[in-house]
Amino acid sequence: MFTLTHFRICPHSRAIRLVLGELGIDHELEEERPWEWRREFLALNPAGELPVLTADGIVICGASVIAEYLAETAVRNDDAGKSRTELLPGDATARAEVRRLTQWFLGKFDREVSRELLTEKVYGTLQPGSGHAPDAAVLRAVRSNLRYHMSYINHLANERRWLAGEDLSFADFAAAAHLSAVDYLAEIPWENYPVAKSWYMRMKSRPAMRPLLADKLAGIAPASWYAELDF
Amino acid sequence: MFTLTHFRICPHSRAIRLVLGELGIDHELEEERPWEWRREFLALNPAGELPVLTADGIVICGASVIAEYLAETAVRNDDAGKSRTELLPGDATARAEVRRLTQWFLGKFDREVSRELLTEKVYGTLQPGSGHAPDAAVLRAVRSNLRYHMSYINHLANERRWLAGEDLSFADFAAAAHLSAVDYLAEIPWENYPVAKSWYMRMKSRPAMRPLLADKLAGIAPASWYAELDF
Repeated sequence: MFTLTHFRICPHSRAIRLVLGELGIDHELEEERPWEWRREFLALNPAGELPVLTADGIVICGASVIAEYLAETAVRNDDAGKSRTELLPGDATARAEVRRLTQWFLGKFDREVSRELLTEKVYGTLQPGSGHAPDAAVLRAVRSNLRYHMSYINHLANERRWLAGEDLSFADFAAAAHLSAVDYLAEIPWENYPVAKSWYMRMKSRPAMRPLLADKLAGIAPASWYAELDF
Repeated sequence: MFTLTHFRICPHSRAIRLVLGELGIDHELEEERPWEWRREFLALNPAGELPVLTADGIVICGASVIAEYLAETAVRNDDAGKSRTELLPGDATARAEVRRLTQWFLGKFDREVSRELLTEKVYGTLQPGSGHAPDAAVLRAVRSNLRYHMSYINHLANERRWLAGEDLSFADFAAAAHLSAVDYLAEIPWENYPVAKSWYMRMKSRPAMRPLLADKLAGIAPASWYAELDF
């Protein structure tokens, strides 16, 4: 049995929650507040980053690493003959495109949008006694970066059935995970990106998305449309 | 025939130059100044990031993506029976450890050390007319982060033959690539990290490192020990 150490709004954790749900892999969730830098958590992952997947003495750290691990091993744990989503479908070139977009969302989008936004609007306020107020200059920069990223997602969704090509892949889960965290905070001007919105509606309608859409943060209400499938 | 679009001091490019050298894969190098954001380069990689590997209409973007691609395909292009370095050796768990450390260097170390350091000390000064002077506060933060990373490398090198385990792997190339860029700028206090130094000496003695150690940047001399195998 797997245990996923995660935090509910953390987009990297969300990417793996989606994957575990999508692949139908039994697991337990354990919540970790990454900003506390607990000694026990750092012993698990010296990077101090979420998510971490554990089972029987095996420790797998980081969303892209967990996705690669599950892509290599999950079939062996599967009921024979049951069809399931492939995280890295296609040949080596198609898989490179999935990985490029995975890195785009887990790396570039994270650096330019999610990480700063969550620090300013969530992690800063959840720490007791921090008295943190979001930095307006940082939020302006993040929103400008977000517009550029949304245009790119809109472009990809316009050219292809799924973000990395004709098949659903880990790139879609990584992207949906990051967008869902940003959308909780009501930061996405969906009306300007209709094709991206239509792709995200398709992602939202997948059963694996349901637990994410039911998440609540203490003291921070989600966008009114956050959990709506047709928004 | 592969073409690698790179920049000489870029650590991500260096990781793939090491891999191509180590695997004996024929290739040409094309240098790109990533801060110029040339339209042709952005058409190749919309992320505007190095390195990019191209061949016969195939475009593979990003160091970890290229490494995965070569791990999947390079054997097929190889002379039969020739032994070669495996980028991702071992079983799924061992490969997860290689990938964890690869992400550590290409992600965390990059964010906390190399990216800032190169921006302040190299990219800022190479842009004509920029008149950029390194920001002392940024350099202080980077050096503090670097000490923490060097302790971790020292710890890994003390516990294991190579960074990710008993076998040389892409994690060693990613780490050596980043350290080599930082070492060019004389930022590593090697005397405090003797086991990390001994691991890096072994990396330096590999033929694939030679072209990197011969690199020069206009107007920025390397550390006096930069190219010395015994330093």
